[in-house]
Amino acid sequence: MRRKFWGWGLEGQGLDDQEVLALGGLLAGHLGLEPPDLRPAPRIEDVRLRQPRLQAPGALADICSQEPWDRAEHTLGKSFDDLARGLAGRWEHPPDLVAFPRSETEVGSVLEWCAAAGAAMVPYGGGSSVARGIEPDVGDGYAGAVSLDLRHLDRVLEVDRDSRSARIQGGVLGPQLEEQLRPLGLTLRHFPQSFEFSSLGGWIATRSGGHYATLFTHIDEFVQGVRALTPRGVYETRRLPGSGAGPDPARLLIGSEGTLGVITEAWMRLQDRPVHRASAAVAFASFEGAWQAARGVAQSGLWPANCRLLDANEALLSGSGDGTHAVLIVTFESADHPVEAWMARAAEICRECGGEVPDVSATARAGAAGAWRDAFVRGGHTHDALVRLGMVQETFETAITWDRFPDFHAGVMEATQRALREVCGTGAAIKEAASSELIRLGGTITHHHAVGRYHRPWYDRERPDLFAEALRAAKRALDPAAIMNPGVLIDP
Amino acid sequence: MRRKFWGWGLEGQGLDDQEVLALGGLLAGHLGLEPPDLRPAPRIEDVRLRQPRLQAPGALADICSQEPWDRAEHTLGKSFDDLARGLAGRWEHPPDLVAFPRSETEVGSVLEWCAAAGAAMVPYGGGSSVARGIEPDVGDGYAGAVSLDLRHLDRVLEVDRDSRSARIQGGVLGPQLEEQLRPLGLTLRHFPQSFEFSSLGGWIATRSGGHYATLFTHIDEFVQGVRALTPRGVYETRRLPGSGAGPDPARLLIGSEGTLGVITEAWMRLQDRPVHRASAAVAFASFEGAWQAARGVAQSGLWPANCRLLDANEALLSGSGDGTHAVLIVTFESADHPVEAWMARAAEICRECGGEVPDVSATARAGAAGAWRDAFVRGGHTHDALVRLGMVQETFETAITWDRFPDFHAGVMEATQRALREVCGTGAAIKEAASSELIRLGGTITHHHAVGRYHRPWYDRERPDLFAEALRAAKRALDPAAIMNPGVLIDP
Repeated sequence: MRRKFWGWGLEGQGLDDQEVLALGGLLAGHLGLEPPDLRPAPRIEDVRLRQPRLQAPGALADICSQEPWDRAEHTLGKSFDDLARGLAGRWEHPPDLVAFPRSETEVGSVLEWCAAAGAAMVPYGGGSSVARGIEPDVGDGYAGAVSLDLRHLDRVLEVDRDSRSARIQGGVLGPQLEEQLRPLGLTLRHFPQSFEFSSLGGWIATRSGGHYATLFTHIDEFVQGVRALTPRGVYETRRLPGSGAGPDPARLLIGSEGTLGVITEAWMRLQDRPVHRASAAVAFASFEGAWQAARGVAQSGLWPANCRLLDANEALLSGSGDGTHAVLIVTFESADHPVEAWMARAAEICRECGGEVPDVSATARAGAAGAWRDAFVRGGHTHDALVRLGMVQETFETAITWDRFPDFHAGVMEATQRALREVCGTGAAIKEAASSELIRLGGTITHHHAVGRYHRPWYDRERPDLFAEALRAAKRALDPAAIMNPGVLIDP
Repeated sequence: MRRKFWGWGLEGQGLDDQEVLALGGLLAGHLGLEPPDLRPAPRIEDVRLRQPRLQAPGALADICSQEPWDRAEHTLGKSFDDLARGLAGRWEHPPDLVAFPRSETEVGSVLEWCAAAGAAMVPYGGGSSVARGIEPDVGDGYAGAVSLDLRHLDRVLEVDRDSRSARIQGGVLGPQLEEQLRPLGLTLRHFPQSFEFSSLGGWIATRSGGHYATLFTHIDEFVQGVRALTPRGVYETRRLPGSGAGPDPARLLIGSEGTLGVITEAWMRLQDRPVHRASAAVAFASFEGAWQAARGVAQSGLWPANCRLLDANEALLSGSGDGTHAVLIVTFESADHPVEAWMARAAEICRECGGEVPDVSATARAGAAGAWRDAFVRGGHTHDALVRLGMVQETFETAITWDRFPDFHAGVMEATQRALREVCGTGAAIKEAASSELIRLGGTITHHHAVGRYHRPWYDRERPDLFAEALRAAKRALDPAAIMNPGVLIDP
């Protein structure tokens, strides 16, 4: 099955037209609106793409494509903004060609050809960017743009069972990776919502965060060593469990969003697959009690695998609540020891903050926690359906210290709701209002979605100016012709 | 009391001549040697320092010193090599002057003056470097060298109890910091062996590691935001609990060893002071059993505060064993919950690997664990005494993945012992043999001591060449005249 070129997942997956209409009717009923119309899913024969400005050289012809489907698939990401533009027929920045290298050597050949041809290169993993990170909108300074799709670099190359780590190719998608690790009793245990269609290299390039949200959350923590091809050659860090030798060379690549090179492999820290589990979905009448409990659990040193707070609305929408209370999902898991003592103390903390703790379950897949999990996993498909119904569903995320949380939360909610009242028909102004408010109040423009091209205006206000200068200088050292993902993070 | 200019601690601290001689007699007896002679501690009136090549301008005269004591104190670090050179009268690279700014503004004034005068600047925290990181050996390209002593920037400026973090000045030493946090029930809980005479800014600049050696070990993990003065101006990262926005700007400064700027403040993550403790010093007849247990505990997800393995020799020397068995010290602590369940499972893991687990103690300051702790804390003084007896005591440290540990350990021990057999009278060749072997076998030249000037030859083999190019380019952006700590990490 092919991947959809305009939305989430594979052809045939997701909601069919009848299901989308039923969902629209249901929501319209809740909101007291007329049932919305359904926009048809784009058909490839209706998509107008500009003529390719580049031709692959003969030696690379086998691994390059200029098929409309391939070019369209590599044009837009998966945000509301991307979906809405696709439905509106705005495919403005297609790559001139898509390369599908089968090896690191072929990655190098494509890179060399791009440098020689003056073409920009946009690395592409699973295509799940919601930050215009993979959109070949590279400006006019290039002979063209090549989308480099790493899907064939999908293997676990080497496993070290003693240290629980493995050398893994950058193009592997989440499920393919876990499938290769499962027979060894190992797991990376990194589950961003995009898990099905995002890649290891993409996670590293964007500093991905998983839904296991205490202790090791960001992919940064799992990288033991990383290898990239830059326009200047190989950049490979020594595989080490820890080091204090100068600024960490891996950290320059982690978060570099394709602007310095293509991540072809990494040594990743793994974990034993858990066998002990305890999970509870704790209900709170007060949102403040709920976040105070989240803080208490997060600061307790118990390190639950999951500690996710849903406000009353999100609990309702995900089927984990009835809209009258917030829900804190707390899950412990371990490959080594029963976790009852851990769960018991977390439950105490929740009760001290006014939480109602139900019976603890030995799985996170049942009850309210399971309902949330199901909604989380099928989020991409639901999103597509809502956009087709003309409804704005946009995602954004940030991070802030606890002391500023109440004002921050109130300020961003207020800015968002104000924009919603003022705006009709587009999500961009709402996102802009929310983003500006969270930067103004001291948050970050992204905890795990990355910067891409979409978040640049706010990122430019968040990061130190001198860091931008240092990063530009580092980029010039690695990518002198500035062909790597131009427009992302910094201007060359 | 002044700090010693030639060794560890304050004047009057440490072993007096009689105690040093007694230690020499004891060790000579163990080793079957004649009691060694005692080299006298250096006297400042005997120290020959080259004439200063720089004079402070009038506006900075108040905060600058050219007193021989101050210049000598800022000449050498605290390694065997430093001590031995000091005892031999080799004070070859004194700073031309030492500046003691009282505020960040004064740091900026000194920096501006250095840039204008063509002087190199060497930031100085507690002076505990064992890597020639603070030695003003900057080459001939400068009008002189200024040691910037940050001791007056020693305050906790702001505390956020909710998020458990604080804004702290870079020059604060370990005990001063903990003293200011204690009334608030908070602790940074970062205890490198140099704790008494090393500073927050120094920890960040060198990517320090503390003796709490599982979970949060490196200072990197505790930095929430950092502020530095560079020759180009202020470099301040946004205070955030987490972010995925581009490569982490803090990580460029963390480990920069004074080559990019002076760290004046940081927002640091703190912890509640622990009230629950459990500790055991587990004895192992077999070293392999001991390190297998260390691996088991480290990989269990129990996250002990301490998990330190002493081989039979180190256990003997620190008074934690009789030389017949290895000792694994395992300590749990928590501010939130009793830790018996954690300790019980760790004890099980140790027993499975052949460990004899004694009664668990509610403190890490008694018994064999306490003996090790005492030896660890007074290590600087013992070291001074041994060097004065003409005995080589050198420290080095590294990191390696578990799969390679047995061969790595054997290879480095063998290379060290071979060098010991071949060499007499100097520790440098031994250190060189050990360092070359650990780099050859895939380790890192430093897990927490930093690179400085001393480790440069091995660091240059460890780090990716293209990272060095990127770092050099970033340095040029921040420090165009290359005045910041020249010779450390990279050549400008």
